[in-house]
Amino acid sequence: MKLGRIAVSGPDGDVARLVLVLPEEERVIDLKRASVLALEKQGATGESARRLSEALFPGSMSAAIGLGERFLDAARRAEKERPDEASIPIGDVKWLPASDPSVVRDGLTFIGHIKGFHEKIGHKPHESLLKVPGYFKGTPHTVIGHDAEVPWPGYIQHMDYELELGYVIGRRGGNLRPEQARPYLFGITVFNDFSARDRQSIEMPIQMGPTKCKDFAYGVGPWITTIDEFADLDAISMEVRVNGETWGKGTSANKLWSVDELIAWASLGEVLEPGDVIGSGTMGGGSALELDRKLQPGDVVELEVGGVGILRNRMGQPQSGLWWPEERTPFM
Amino acid sequence: MKLGRIAVSGPDGDVARLVLVLPEEERVIDLKRASVLALEKQGATGESARRLSEALFPGSMSAAIGLGERFLDAARRAEKERPDEASIPIGDVKWLPASDPSVVRDGLTFIGHIKGFHEKIGHKPHESLLKVPGYFKGTPHTVIGHDAEVPWPGYIQHMDYELELGYVIGRRGGNLRPEQARPYLFGITVFNDFSARDRQSIEMPIQMGPTKCKDFAYGVGPWITTIDEFADLDAISMEVRVNGETWGKGTSANKLWSVDELIAWASLGEVLEPGDVIGSGTMGGGSALELDRKLQPGDVVELEVGGVGILRNRMGQPQSGLWWPEERTPFM
Repeated sequence: MKLGRIAVSGPDGDVARLVLVLPEEERVIDLKRASVLALEKQGATGESARRLSEALFPGSMSAAIGLGERFLDAARRAEKERPDEASIPIGDVKWLPASDPSVVRDGLTFIGHIKGFHEKIGHKPHESLLKVPGYFKGTPHTVIGHDAEVPWPGYIQHMDYELELGYVIGRRGGNLRPEQARPYLFGITVFNDFSARDRQSIEMPIQMGPTKCKDFAYGVGPWITTIDEFADLDAISMEVRVNGETWGKGTSANKLWSVDELIAWASLGEVLEPGDVIGSGTMGGGSALELDRKLQPGDVVELEVGGVGILRNRMGQPQSGLWWPEERTPFM
Repeated sequence: MKLGRIAVSGPDGDVARLVLVLPEEERVIDLKRASVLALEKQGATGESARRLSEALFPGSMSAAIGLGERFLDAARRAEKERPDEASIPIGDVKWLPASDPSVVRDGLTFIGHIKGFHEKIGHKPHESLLKVPGYFKGTPHTVIGHDAEVPWPGYIQHMDYELELGYVIGRRGGNLRPEQARPYLFGITVFNDFSARDRQSIEMPIQMGPTKCKDFAYGVGPWITTIDEFADLDAISMEVRVNGETWGKGTSANKLWSVDELIAWASLGEVLEPGDVIGSGTMGGGSALELDRKLQPGDVVELEVGGVGILRNRMGQPQSGLWWPEERTPFM
């Protein structure tokens, strides 16, 4: 099943709706609307049908996934019935981020990218990379969806994309072992870890993790494909196009840490929440840095992942006039 | 005003309540209960009084702060009336984290600690520390409150505390300049950035920020003192005691980056949300690392901040049996 989030107009402004996506029929099904219709046919009053449908299909994907099998069952019913009265042509849809994670995490698992990145910056990977599955955490408030314009803070000169899978968590869990991890994986989306290489080279040596080089946009979408639709997580096709030209192409093979190890590691000592998104890390050749290229304002970046679809975003214009700190004088 | 969060028993288990804290009277006022009583006296029905009071004083501090002045006005009314019927003796209270931040951020602003830390690890601070106000992001799900036991994942050998102020954000905002930042500061709480020094020395060189060395516990409490009660943010007394013995004592003076600069920086290109907590960074001498000491299971750590109060936590016992990754072989 393919599940997404869209914005629809309401009397108090836009509201978020969960949808079942039927790309081959070029339409989406509004899941709350479909549920209301089904309940009314079974004799529910309109008010009661809306109350239960809102609880089953809130605007938050994370909240819906948090219901577990009950949510999936209700979505499957809509998939079977596909009511025309709850249909929206796919071309009319205003997409929201496919999930609303409580935390954005982004790993570093593809050996090809770790090699390519370190060759470009002229360092060997630190031995710590071999000891634990590194990942960084991003602010969840800068997640953007399909077709959204990418904000470009004016302090960024060297803009890049990163082609990644987004692992969407399906259940709350902590202290998992890799052999327990798979049932916690709800599905896969496309993840674009937009990155400011010039800012990154300043921030990363502080060793507290990326902030302004990453926390301006994380692309998550266009929708989530549930995990049952993937036969092999190490054989998913991945491609990036800029302005229609292919800049990188490969698969999800050749990982330093498996998906299960990454999920287990992220869960240690803490809690993964339904709807959380963990980026796979960049595919080998999945960044423009590895090609000595960079993005320009107005560029259109398309990430395509087999079994999911295409996440497309246009780069915005640099925002000028932002504050920037003055450098301090050394104190030791 | 001092505002906190507590757990009270309900028919479906514990629920969170916001309280006005009156330490000198050794009691707290349940703000929702006080609001219901006041509304009923003005002629509201019980149901309506509860509906409005729940909207004014939800269990989430972040959601309440998000209401802005309307929330503060209602709290001030309760402070004036101090109804005995809504009182709870402070000794009977089960504390929750004083806020429920959407993101935990933790800065590095006290020059004394940056010096002390780098002297211990035998490195000079990286020049990037002088260019931008470094901070890391922590998972919000490991925030704990006053009197909570600190989880101790068994993979941690070298346990430490960090004595910090917690800056609590009061308004949604992005792309702030330092001169605009102060109205976005709601209040100050005590922040304990519990840290695993052995894990930190492995994780930090990956340059993606701390994960397992930090994301097991952030102490936030016992409550928040609103910002109007502080005359000078650079002259707040700070002290840490372990098992009753003073291990560090100082003030909030001598910062590399001001509070306003830290808030402005954190807001660049993204959004600060009401209730978010930004750690000040550790006070000089505010970690045991600087004293060549470490914490043991069962130790009681008290952080005292002038104008706020004492955040006390007992260290738990190491949790054994957790998974740990096997080291990989070099690939380049």
